[in-house]
Amino acid sequence: MINQLTILAPGLLGASVARTARRLSLANKIVVWSRRPETRDQLRSQPWCDRVADSPADAMNNASLVVIAAPVERIIELIKHIAHVLPSGAVVTDVGSVKAHLTRACHAAMPAHAHFVGAHPMAGSQYTGWENATDTLFANRPCFVTPLVDTNPAAVELVSKFWHDLGCRVSTVSPDEHDEIVAHISHLPQSIATCLGSFLATKNPDWRRHCGNGLRDTTRIAASDATMWIEIFQQNRDELLRALRAYEQELHGFSTALANRDWPELRTRLEQGKKFRDSLG
Amino acid sequence: MINQLTILAPGLLGASVARTARRLSLANKIVVWSRRPETRDQLRSQPWCDRVADSPADAMNNASLVVIAAPVERIIELIKHIAHVLPSGAVVTDVGSVKAHLTRACHAAMPAHAHFVGAHPMAGSQYTGWENATDTLFANRPCFVTPLVDTNPAAVELVSKFWHDLGCRVSTVSPDEHDEIVAHISHLPQSIATCLGSFLATKNPDWRRHCGNGLRDTTRIAASDATMWIEIFQQNRDELLRALRAYEQELHGFSTALANRDWPELRTRLEQGKKFRDSLG
Repeated sequence: MINQLTILAPGLLGASVARTARRLSLANKIVVWSRRPETRDQLRSQPWCDRVADSPADAMNNASLVVIAAPVERIIELIKHIAHVLPSGAVVTDVGSVKAHLTRACHAAMPAHAHFVGAHPMAGSQYTGWENATDTLFANRPCFVTPLVDTNPAAVELVSKFWHDLGCRVSTVSPDEHDEIVAHISHLPQSIATCLGSFLATKNPDWRRHCGNGLRDTTRIAASDATMWIEIFQQNRDELLRALRAYEQELHGFSTALANRDWPELRTRLEQGKKFRDSLG
Repeated sequence: MINQLTILAPGLLGASVARTARRLSLANKIVVWSRRPETRDQLRSQPWCDRVADSPADAMNNASLVVIAAPVERIIELIKHIAHVLPSGAVVTDVGSVKAHLTRACHAAMPAHAHFVGAHPMAGSQYTGWENATDTLFANRPCFVTPLVDTNPAAVELVSKFWHDLGCRVSTVSPDEHDEIVAHISHLPQSIATCLGSFLATKNPDWRRHCGNGLRDTTRIAASDATMWIEIFQQNRDELLRALRAYEQELHGFSTALANRDWPELRTRLEQGKKFRDSLG
């Protein structure tokens, strides 16, 4: 059992951490801090907040585990704010969706007596904000835990167990490997769906009423929030660029086979794509 | 009310036409013909078949409306088989997913006393075969009706009403326009999803356990049947190639903006993609 769980900047993810931790009694005490005073006032009446702190430093009082649930851009800034007041032995984790640069910067900003272990729970919904949080958001969702080679093993163990207890399927990978993986399985699909949407947006709007479930599924994530994705693209530009260029090659090979009426080649690609999708279950 | 509805080659679509027509009492009599003798034997016990014919020509006896539910490749061949025995005034429609070449060939093969009006109901499922047919498959599904300029207006009216009565949202477009539209809203998404699947199939299989709903949605149609899609690609090669090349340009513009760290340009594309997706509802 965690003695005090502190959550900074609880939005959809951070508040869902709190609600799930409360439901499962994972922490004796849950402390939160939010940037806006009016949000802090609203949080005071939530049954999953034992205390609402007035500042990030105030929220560190007696913290055993700290979850920084802010957008990627603001995580390092917050770490720098709290580093000098972290209790001895405190462990800090986050929910940032890009990890290589961030993890190194957070490690560098930490005092010797506390530990940072990055995490990326792949959970979310089209809704944002703590008002939409649930106590089941992490059930059976993938979660990366991304220690550096010299990260304290007990801290890695604690953070892995925490996300596991929240319901996640936890995998431990290096921050660099994490960014390569999500570039391919998350940022590339987002880019492809966005481009399909932005391309079809230039066509006759009447075509939209003919749209079937295939187009609907293939473009579903194009409806995601642009601001969130710009931040992810900025953070993971290099890996995404590599994945995009390889996918451009794949697509060009496909259109070349079509141009050449190379039906056996197209069949091979269709079957390979089907096999991959079937393997996802 | 249609006097006799004849369905050739009932698979998932054709048998769903029969079952829905039976439920809604759209025809006095439903006659079917299937290529395999063992399938014909099985169909004899189905409550939505009043008669199972032994040959396509036999199935034309007294037919008022004929639905050819065969794969695109076999439709013209079947039309040629039945043309000389079609009753006077009979109307023939189909379910082929590519229309330009097919419609012209079917028109050319028809006798003067009967009419062909192409159709393409955008309905289906991952299952195939008449055993998986339902009497609600067409509910609220888009359906194209694709007459040529000189197609008999009464026949167009009859075919449009028929698909509408089955539950479809019917749109009338020229065969060429149909092929351009489906190249963009159906065949292009299929190609993109297939390429994403075939590309990721070359990567570490361990990555698959991290896959979230975004990748799952974006690749869902990659699981479709390869044989069906090769036929569609063969039939609609020119239009799909045009759509694919324009999409390749779109994607390349996206990766170039990423390479250039042109965040305003990427934001514009994300927002345009989102606006398109939101407009699909």
